[in-house]
Amino acid sequence: MSDAVVVTDIERAPADLVDRLGGYGVATVHEALDRVGYLGPRFRPVHPASIAGPAVTALCWPGDNLMIHAAVEQCRPGDVLVVTTTSPSTDGMFGELLATSLQARGVRGAVIDAGARDVAELREMGFPVWSTAVSAQGTVKSTAGSVNVPVVLGGQRVCPGDAVVADEDGVLCVPRADVARAIEGARARVENEAASREAFRAGELGLDRYGMREKLAGLGVRYLSAAEYARERRS
Amino acid sequence: MSDAVVVTDIERAPADLVDRLGGYGVATVHEALDRVGYLGPRFRPVHPASIAGPAVTALCWPGDNLMIHAAVEQCRPGDVLVVTTTSPSTDGMFGELLATSLQARGVRGAVIDAGARDVAELREMGFPVWSTAVSAQGTVKSTAGSVNVPVVLGGQRVCPGDAVVADEDGVLCVPRADVARAIEGARARVENEAASREAFRAGELGLDRYGMREKLAGLGVRYLSAAEYARERRS
Amino acid sequence: MSDAVVVTDIERAPADLVDRLGGYGVATVHEALDRVGYLGPRFRPVHPASIAGPAVTALCWPGDNLMIHAAVEQCRPGDVLVVTTTSPSTDGMFGELLATSLQARGVRGAVIDAGARDVAELREMGFPVWSTAVSAQGTVKSTAGSVNVPVVLGGQRVCPGDAVVADEDGVLCVPRADVARAIEGARARVENEAASREAFRAGELGLDRYGMREKLAGLGVRYLSAAEYARERRS
Amino acid sequence: MSDAVVVTDIERAPADLVDRLGGYGVATVHEALDRVGYLGPRFRPVHPASIAGPAVTALCWPGDNLMIHAAVEQCRPGDVLVVTTTSPSTDGMFGELLATSLQARGVRGAVIDAGARDVAELREMGFPVWSTAVSAQGTVKSTAGSVNVPVVLGGQRVCPGDAVVADEDGVLCVPRADVARAIEGARARVENEAASREAFRAGELGLDRYGMREKLAGLGVRYLSAAEYARERRS
Amino acid sequence: MSDAVVVTDIERAPADLVDRLGGYGVATVHEALDRVGYLGPRFRPVHPASIAGPAVTALCWPGDNLMIHAAVEQCRPGDVLVVTTTSPSTDGMFGELLATSLQARGVRGAVIDAGARDVAELREMGFPVWSTAVSAQGTVKSTAGSVNVPVVLGGQRVCPGDAVVADEDGVLCVPRADVARAIEGARARVENEAASREAFRAGELGLDRYGMREKLAGLGVRYLSAAEYARERRS
Amino acid sequence: MSDAVVVTDIERAPADLVDRLGGYGVATVHEALDRVGYLGPRFRPVHPASIAGPAVTALCWPGDNLMIHAAVEQCRPGDVLVVTTTSPSTDGMFGELLATSLQARGVRGAVIDAGARDVAELREMGFPVWSTAVSAQGTVKSTAGSVNVPVVLGGQRVCPGDAVVADEDGVLCVPRADVARAIEGARARVENEAASREAFRAGELGLDRYGMREKLAGLGVRYLSAAEYARERRS
Repeated sequence: MSDAVVVTDIERAPADLVDRLGGYGVATVHEALDRVGYLGPRFRPVHPASIAGPAVTALCWPGDNLMIHAAVEQCRPGDVLVVTTTSPSTDGMFGELLATSLQARGVRGAVIDAGARDVAELREMGFPVWSTAVSAQGTVKSTAGSVNVPVVLGGQRVCPGDAVVADEDGVLCVPRADVARAIEGARARVENEAASREAFRAGELGLDRYGMREKLAGLGVRYLSAAEYARERRS
Repeated sequence: MSDAVVVTDIERAPADLVDRLGGYGVATVHEALDRVGYLGPRFRPVHPASIAGPAVTALCWPGDNLMIHAAVEQCRPGDVLVVTTTSPSTDGMFGELLATSLQARGVRGAVIDAGARDVAELREMGFPVWSTAVSAQGTVKSTAGSVNVPVVLGGQRVCPGDAVVADEDGVLCVPRADVARAIEGARARVENEAASREAFRAGELGLDRYGMREKLAGLGVRYLSAAEYARERRS
Repeated sequence: MSDAVVVTDIERAPADLVDRLGGYGVATVHEALDRVGYLGPRFRPVHPASIAGPAVTALCWPGDNLMIHAAVEQCRPGDVLVVTTTSPSTDGMFGELLATSLQARGVRGAVIDAGARDVAELREMGFPVWSTAVSAQGTVKSTAGSVNVPVVLGGQRVCPGDAVVADEDGVLCVPRADVARAIEGARARVENEAASREAFRAGELGLDRYGMREKLAGLGVRYLSAAEYARERRS
Repeated sequence: MSDAVVVTDIERAPADLVDRLGGYGVATVHEALDRVGYLGPRFRPVHPASIAGPAVTALCWPGDNLMIHAAVEQCRPGDVLVVTTTSPSTDGMFGELLATSLQARGVRGAVIDAGARDVAELREMGFPVWSTAVSAQGTVKSTAGSVNVPVVLGGQRVCPGDAVVADEDGVLCVPRADVARAIEGARARVENEAASREAFRAGELGLDRYGMREKLAGLGVRYLSAAEYARERRS
Repeated sequence: MSDAVVVTDIERAPADLVDRLGGYGVATVHEALDRVGYLGPRFRPVHPASIAGPAVTALCWPGDNLMIHAAVEQCRPGDVLVVTTTSPSTDGMFGELLATSLQARGVRGAVIDAGARDVAELREMGFPVWSTAVSAQGTVKSTAGSVNVPVVLGGQRVCPGDAVVADEDGVLCVPRADVARAIEGARARVENEAASREAFRAGELGLDRYGMREKLAGLGVRYLSAAEYARERRS
Repeated sequence: MSDAVVVTDIERAPADLVDRLGGYGVATVHEALDRVGYLGPRFRPVHPASIAGPAVTALCWPGDNLMIHAAVEQCRPGDVLVVTTTSPSTDGMFGELLATSLQARGVRGAVIDAGARDVAELREMGFPVWSTAVSAQGTVKSTAGSVNVPVVLGGQRVCPGDAVVADEDGVLCVPRADVARAIEGARARVENEAASREAFRAGELGLDRYGMREKLAGLGVRYLSAAEYARERRS
């Protein structure tokens, strides 16, 4: 019995919650969740964009985009397609034709742990893509893989239906069960940050606002004038 | 007898054919040629551009751009300068002054398997450059190399006179002898893609259009509901 | 006695000299100083900008931005904040809130040998940042480090008060003692380059302008026609 | 409520099954499981060794090995300690003292997605370690993390109690639920391979043994003499 | 008409010449050929060995070793199998079973621009392999490629029948037409080096033996005492 | 006036102190100095060895080893040669002939931030080398550089005469002024470690020995049984 499966009626993070989550952006939601779920700096937007949606996942063989085609059928309006390969690849497995098909289905964007191509066309279409490479290297359609199974990208596990948030800072995955908590945390953080922003504009220091002077002292950090420092280095 | 040579009257891919080829873009021509000739994702445009032209090649020592100066003299209007080093380097061996000289000779752009610098000036001049790094690190002019010998960049062999196509997807080399065939293939592909694009916009699936359902079945890919999948994983 | 220190009243390269230096740009000043001081191609601007200013340095533990907060207090109008970590990190240790605080103090920009985040906000604020990654990965504030001690970034030593020049070509550090000499060299170089630019526009070759034909001959570089070269390769 | 937890009484893959699995080695078990679970080529043994055992996992902050100490207490005889960091790090977070402690508890080895140090001592002690770097760079003990939660290393999810197999080919994780199936598959594979090995020694070709001649023909691969190939390339 | 071909009766560099060439080792032959043909530091021996032989080449799809099986049939006693992929891959496409088949045919070793596996077994068998990764990641046999066409590995073109030399310093390709010249150059170099070795053992300096003092002076290198240097830096 | 200099009579860290320092090894001395001075995991020994000695430094152009020859003359018995390039290079700029010359002068080893070659011969000679690559790629002798000026390798500044310690864990630089303090710290650390080693062998835990249980509690790390953890994840 083959391990290669297409899973068809996944449960998705609720659309209204995902939309609210997306409004906070990657960095804020990441912090709100105790700094987990970020896919790391390898994922870059092909053109600046900001989206959020539940994940439809595709696991492909390197150099082969067959399963992306199978995944398209599983996508619904509002989804984000998330693609990875069984071993690292930079090949251009996603381009303008697949984007056209996804856009026609109301998909909000794609996250590819491999190469994207037709990047000028993707920008003109306004279809958001995050990828780990830009590459015209073409792929075949020969080897089985899976759709809507849990996958790992950028050191993070993405399960089908998890909320994906992506903007110019990169890509974040929020487990379906954590979306409500993430919204709560992000809202609180945004309020705190607004107050800090005002304080910083007015010249208050983070050292004072966050009570770091005590921490520095406790860690043994010493304040020296340049002259004292030079003297100490010489002795 | 030295191996370092400047070859002077190379045969070039015909200008009219190269121009037609360039109109199809990197990704399409790459596919039309059975997916060979792409220089990989390391080559990025310094600013967005799209060009095609026959290659004039320069092989330099790392950290040394002497042979680029020798190559400039061999360039004619419409050419693309292609530069590599005998071992990997990111040094900024190409900048605004060399671009000025090439632009004055009608050269269409440069492809550098090393660093480019003066990138703001290159953008203002409108001189297209693809490189594997942006770097201000300067170079010397001390060591011999060659001009218009076959070189290897990004895993591809580029012979003098071969057609180089470059756009936002990267850089492609088409051997001189394959240009006519590439145009033919690209034209056919563009027509097919236009039809597919229309079909995808209308909601047809790649699975159906490309007959992939049979392939998936033949490969043993099974369709399971999320509930069935969960049950199977538990057992 | 702890090695972790904050040095408080560093001597800075004179503001008027640093401003003049900045006008020449990274590539020109780098050449004027015999090609030293460039931090290499890993440092990229988050958005296009061009700045110069004396360095305030911060040395942080990886994944920890505590000492950036301590460094903010040491910054004066016109400064450039320079941050590195004790071992390589891509974490997003600098974002919009810290930039707000620095901008309020008149700081001109930041150079981070790690990740920057909130990059859309940084662009909107017009606060220039050069970093070696874009990353939303958050950091803690737990471990001691130092402010205004000599640090190494990109293979270059940066001392507090040294002049930092940064533009689209990357980042350069000019030791405080070399600023006057660098200005002198850059001015001379700019004049030479202006003359060369005119000559190249008029069609003169670098080979002739720089007297390279003799050098090539001396190195044993031979000129062959394509036919001669082909014949030689066959024999 | 903190997300940082130490989970204390995890269920482990049965010791007798893990031992049998380990006897087959990484490459064979990987194939037996349809080519999943391999942690990739970044993980190298500090000295040649071959082990298997259930995973005790530790998730650390980069540059901080506090949670390894917490994990030691959770280890039982026969276990394998598996350590990763919340963002990439090469710091030397595991060395001879921790190995001494683990060896005293009967632990079979450690897998570290970061640096190992004291590598000469580890070899002398005969304590097996796989790591992604060798580094003397020291770490602090300041930031919370977790023990015995699911972690991701090398693109694979490792849950506490999963079977880890490691040898000179690298590291493999087999989910607890798949161990019995993996043993079955590996046994069958070993038998097949023994027969193939004999056949290959006797001169049979893989082309014939695996019926690949038909596949090649079906894929359109043509056999040409060198003379025919040269003629075709010329035309 | 497919581009995928198996070329069957390639012309090989003469066995006696290749054997003599191999006796000189990679570094010496590389220098003898004006420093071309070296495949770079990514290629490492799986276990220490030194071989030479004519190349049989295989071009595979990433993650697919079908064409290695086709290449085995084209190998004769004394050959070296040279394998690359159409885009970069680290997958373990070569292991003990293929080595058994090659060893039975008298093949001297393999060079793989991808991963090797079963490395303990390869060492025990005494079958030499150079690869760019050690990886247990398995491959499929689904996509067409070619055998005995020119390929590029490590920035060098390798044509079928070219002489491959490999030892602990890496891998070198010598074009068939250059083998005799390479032997001549290597022999001369070995004699020179023997004399230099004796001179260096006796305490002569390279500065004197190679006449570099004049070169240094001509380049403007100045000799300063530490005191003079310190004084100059201060001024 | 050229910046390229050979500095001739540098002050060295005292031989007896350097020898004592070397006895402690890289990891211990690194910790004794508050975790500074380590050159990172890119530097690997060509064959296992352990040395210490004052640094003679050479700064070379990439692909050019001219200045190593100039540096040989500046080496005395007991020294360690430390070589870097002005921009990153993997070329094989150090091999058996240079090692012969250094060995004849009583030099203890070499540290190269580039490639080493003739690695089999270096092992046979017993001459210790740490490098960032193994490469046969040859170099020229064309461009000026400096000897015995401060250089940066692996993110660390190495001044001529500083103590270099190198073993299987990598390479460490201890500033001349810090050698005595480093010995003191290393001796204390070794005593502590011996006691810890015994305690760990006897089954004491680091958690108890280092008082970490309080720290974990203070950081909010909670202990949960696997059942409690599963329940919490579900809710």
